[in-house]
Amino acid sequence: MIIPACGARVACVSSHYDDEQLVAALRAALSVDRVLDSPFEKVLYAKDASAIAPEDPGVVCLATSTAEVAAAVAIANRFGRSITPRGSGTGLAGGTIPLERAVVITTTKMNRVLEVHEHDGYAWVEPGLLNLDLTRAVSARGVHYAPDPSSQQTCSIGGNVGTNAGGPHCLLHGVTSAHIIAIEVVLPNGEIAVLGDIRGDAAGYDLRGVFVGSEGTMGIATKIAVRLTPNPPAIRTLLADFSTIREASKAVSAIIASGLLPAALEMMDANCIRAVENWAHAGLPLDAGAVLLVELEGVVDVVNDGVADVSRICTAQGAGSVRVAADATERALLWKARKSAFGAIANIKPNYYLHDCVVPRTRLAEIMDEVTRIADEQELIVLNVFHAGDGNLHPLLVYDKREPGVVDRVHEAGRQIIEVCIAAGGMLSGEHGIGLEKRDYMPLVFSAIDLDYQARIRLVFDPDQKWNPGKVLPGGSSCGEALHDASGPVVVAGAWV
Amino acid sequence: MIIPACGARVACVSSHYDDEQLVAALRAALSVDRVLDSPFEKVLYAKDASAIAPEDPGVVCLATSTAEVAAAVAIANRFGRSITPRGSGTGLAGGTIPLERAVVITTTKMNRVLEVHEHDGYAWVEPGLLNLDLTRAVSARGVHYAPDPSSQQTCSIGGNVGTNAGGPHCLLHGVTSAHIIAIEVVLPNGEIAVLGDIRGDAAGYDLRGVFVGSEGTMGIATKIAVRLTPNPPAIRTLLADFSTIREASKAVSAIIASGLLPAALEMMDANCIRAVENWAHAGLPLDAGAVLLVELEGVVDVVNDGVADVSRICTAQGAGSVRVAADATERALLWKARKSAFGAIANIKPNYYLHDCVVPRTRLAEIMDEVTRIADEQELIVLNVFHAGDGNLHPLLVYDKREPGVVDRVHEAGRQIIEVCIAAGGMLSGEHGIGLEKRDYMPLVFSAIDLDYQARIRLVFDPDQKWNPGKVLPGGSSCGEALHDASGPVVVAGAWV
Repeated sequence: MIIPACGARVACVSSHYDDEQLVAALRAALSVDRVLDSPFEKVLYAKDASAIAPEDPGVVCLATSTAEVAAAVAIANRFGRSITPRGSGTGLAGGTIPLERAVVITTTKMNRVLEVHEHDGYAWVEPGLLNLDLTRAVSARGVHYAPDPSSQQTCSIGGNVGTNAGGPHCLLHGVTSAHIIAIEVVLPNGEIAVLGDIRGDAAGYDLRGVFVGSEGTMGIATKIAVRLTPNPPAIRTLLADFSTIREASKAVSAIIASGLLPAALEMMDANCIRAVENWAHAGLPLDAGAVLLVELEGVVDVVNDGVADVSRICTAQGAGSVRVAADATERALLWKARKSAFGAIANIKPNYYLHDCVVPRTRLAEIMDEVTRIADEQELIVLNVFHAGDGNLHPLLVYDKREPGVVDRVHEAGRQIIEVCIAAGGMLSGEHGIGLEKRDYMPLVFSAIDLDYQARIRLVFDPDQKWNPGKVLPGGSSCGEALHDASGPVVVAGAWV
Repeated sequence: MIIPACGARVACVSSHYDDEQLVAALRAALSVDRVLDSPFEKVLYAKDASAIAPEDPGVVCLATSTAEVAAAVAIANRFGRSITPRGSGTGLAGGTIPLERAVVITTTKMNRVLEVHEHDGYAWVEPGLLNLDLTRAVSARGVHYAPDPSSQQTCSIGGNVGTNAGGPHCLLHGVTSAHIIAIEVVLPNGEIAVLGDIRGDAAGYDLRGVFVGSEGTMGIATKIAVRLTPNPPAIRTLLADFSTIREASKAVSAIIASGLLPAALEMMDANCIRAVENWAHAGLPLDAGAVLLVELEGVVDVVNDGVADVSRICTAQGAGSVRVAADATERALLWKARKSAFGAIANIKPNYYLHDCVVPRTRLAEIMDEVTRIADEQELIVLNVFHAGDGNLHPLLVYDKREPGVVDRVHEAGRQIIEVCIAAGGMLSGEHGIGLEKRDYMPLVFSAIDLDYQARIRLVFDPDQKWNPGKVLPGGSSCGEALHDASGPVVVAGAWV
C-alpha cells in the first residue's frame, strides 16, 4: 500500500544493530522506562482508532518536556530515522500509524495546564492534555474550550491540532484552527519555535495556520496557546423527531436559512437512534426516521426566542414532536446519547469504520439515500450520526472482522461513499484529516500544481522527508523540488469551477 | 530605506534599452494603450493611499484577463524584472509601491462578477471588482459580501485578498480570509492554479490561507470565489454617547462580556465626532467625549432583545443617551458618518496618516491616553475612529505636508504609537497589512526562526525573489535557503509567552 513519496528517496530499512544503538541513545536522553522497544509495549502504538492495518513502530518515546522531545528528534535525525508524532491515538484516518519503522514520539505524558488567562481569553497547555480535561480545568473560571470532538474524553489537544479536529459545536465556533492562537513546536531540524502570537492575529505569512492540520509532517507541538470561550449565559437544547431523513434535512436548511445560528445542529438516523437508545436510555423516539439535536447559546432572552423559532420551524417541516431539555441533566443526557454513538454500536457488531465527508447541505437527503444503497449492496449495516448544520457526514459501517471477506466489502463501500460525496460537490474530510486513509484520493480534489505546492510547503519544514512519511500527500507529489530541477517549470492548466 | 532582501541578491537596475524592449513585448501581448510607460501616466501607480514616498514603476500593465496577466508575468520573467501586483491602490501600508522599477500589473480592468450561486453561498468574481460593487451586484438575491473596509467604495476584492482586509462587520463575520473560498492565481513562475476549493474546506495544507494576506509576494489573483453571506432578517443600529473614552471602553467590555455578539462595535472620539458631524450632518452629539456605534443583526425578535440589552448595558456604564436608528435611512446616515471619517478630516488638514494596531480590549482606554499624549508632544492633531469590539485602533494623524518638519513628526509619532501598542501586548496590524510601512517592525513580534520560515514559505512561491520585493519581511529574513547551506541548522531558542 505504501508508495515511496519520491523516486529519489531511499527507503529506510534499519538494521537491528542500529535499533539497539538508537534505543540506547534515546534511553540516555529520556529514561529507560519511557523508551519502549518490546513488541508487547509497542503494539499499542502501531495503529490508531481506524480500521487501517497496524505497522511496527521502531521505538516509542514517551516525552515529558520540550527538551526531551527536542532530544529525541535530534537522536532520530542522527540515526537517519523517520519520526511519527502521536497524541492519544484516537485518529480515524491512520495519521499516526508509523510507517518505515518510524520513531514514535508521543506527548501523552505532557498533559499539564500551564497558565490560564481567562480574562484575556487564552491558556497555555501541553499537547497531551485531553480535550475534555482542558474544559474541566477552566470551567470554574467561566470559560471553556469550544471544539468538542465526540472523542473529547480521550483525544488530546495536540492531536486536535494535528488533524484540525471538529466537533458538534464547531458549527457556531469554527474548527480547531480558529481556537489555536500560538504553538511552540520542535521543528524537524530540532529547532524550537513559537508559531503565531498570543498578542493577536499575527501579520505576515500564517505559519500557525499551516501547522494546524499538518498531521505530524512539519514537526511536533510541545506547548499550545488555546483560545478560551466564555461560557454563554444561557444554553438550550432541543430534540426534534421526523419520520424521514428527507424531512429532517429540510428542517436543517430551513433553520439555517432563517438567519438563526445554532451552536450545534446534529442528526441521527433510525439505525443510530436505536443503537444509542439501547445503550444510553436518553428517551430517544425509537419510531423516528431521524432526529435533530439543536443547541442554542447566548444571552437568556435571545436564546429563549431562538428556541421558539427552531420549534416553529421544525414543526412546520413535519416534526412529530419537539422536546426541549428541561435542565442541565436532561441536556447532558441528550449529548451523552449523541457522543456515545460510537460506543453504543459495539452492541451491534464488534468493529466499525467511520467515514468523514462534507457535502452541500442542499444535497444531504439524496446523498444519505446513496449511502444506504451502497451499504445495502455490500450487505453492511450503516448508521448515520453527523454534523448536519455544516453538511459533515459520518456514515458508520459496522461489521465483525472475523467474518470472511467483510473487510474488503467495508473498504469497497467506503470508496464508493467517498466518490459519491465528491461527485455531489463534496470534500474528502470535514475533521478527521487525510492520514493514510485518503492520501490517494487527494488528486480527486486538488490539481497537480496545488499538490506540488503543498509538497513544497511540506519540504520547507521537512526537507529530508522524514516526518510522518507516507501521510497526507499521494505518492509522487512530494517531488516539488525535482520539478524545478528540470529544464523549465511544469505547466498544468488549473481548472476553475 | 530599502535594504536588499538577501545578501546574495543582485539589485536590478534596468537600462533604458531593456525598458524599450520590455514595453514593446508587453504591448504586443496586451495592447498599446494598456501598457503605460510615460511618466505622466505612471505617476498614478507610484504610490498607494499611505503617506509613504512614491517610487517609479518601470512600466504599468492594465490586464483584462488571466491570459494577459500570465503573458505579462512571462515577459517580466524573461526580462528578469520584478513584479508588483496592484488593485485600486487604496492600501495604507505601502504594499503596492513599486520598488526596483517593478513591472506593475494592475487588475482594475478585471472587474466582472462571473457567476453568482447565492443558494450555495458563493460567487466567482474578478479581482478588480470593487468591494461595494460586489455587494450591490448580489443584493437583489438576498446576500452580501460581509467584510466592509471603510474604503469599500473604492477598494477592490483582489486588494482585500492581498492585505487580508478587515472592516466594521468583521467583528461578527471575521476578516477577509474567512470569506475567500478559492483563488485562481498566476504564480510567480507563470503557472495558473486554483488554491482552495468551492466544494468546502480543503484538506491538506492550506495554500489558500497562505496566499490571503501575502501582499503580492506569491503571485497575483485573477479570479476569486467569495463567500456570500445571507442578508439578516433584521438589522438594528444604536448610537450611544459617553463623556469619556474610558466610559465608552468599559461599555465595550461589558457588551462583549454579556455574551452578546454584535455585528459591529465601533468607537469615535471627540475630535472625530466633530470632524465627521461638520461633514456628514448625521446628528452626532457634538459635546460627547466618545460615541459607540453598535449594530446587531439576526432574527427579528432576537435582534430586538439585543437592542434592549445593549441599551441597558450602555446606560449602566454611563451613556448620556442611546439612540436607536428608526429606519434604514437613519442607519445609513450613521454608517455614512462612520465610514466618511477619512474624507471629513480633509476639512481640518489636507493630509493624514492612518495607523492600524491591535491592543487587548482591556487596555483600550489607557492606550488611547498614550496616543493623545504622543500626538500632543509632536504637536499633531489626532482623531480616533476604530473597531473597538476587537481592539483594532486607527489613530489618524492629520497634518499639512507643506509645513516644514511636520512629516518627520508624523513618522516619529507613528513609531511611538506602534511601540506603545506592542509594549501593551498588541500587534502590528489589524487589517492594513505590513507592506513597506511595518516591515522593519516585524522582529518586534516575530522570532528569528519564525521570520526565517516565513521567508522560506515565500521562496516556495517566488524562488527568484522578484515579487513585490522589499515588502512584508525585514531585510535579511529572506535568506532561508542560505541558512541551510551552512554546515548545520541555525538554532535560535524560541521564546514562548
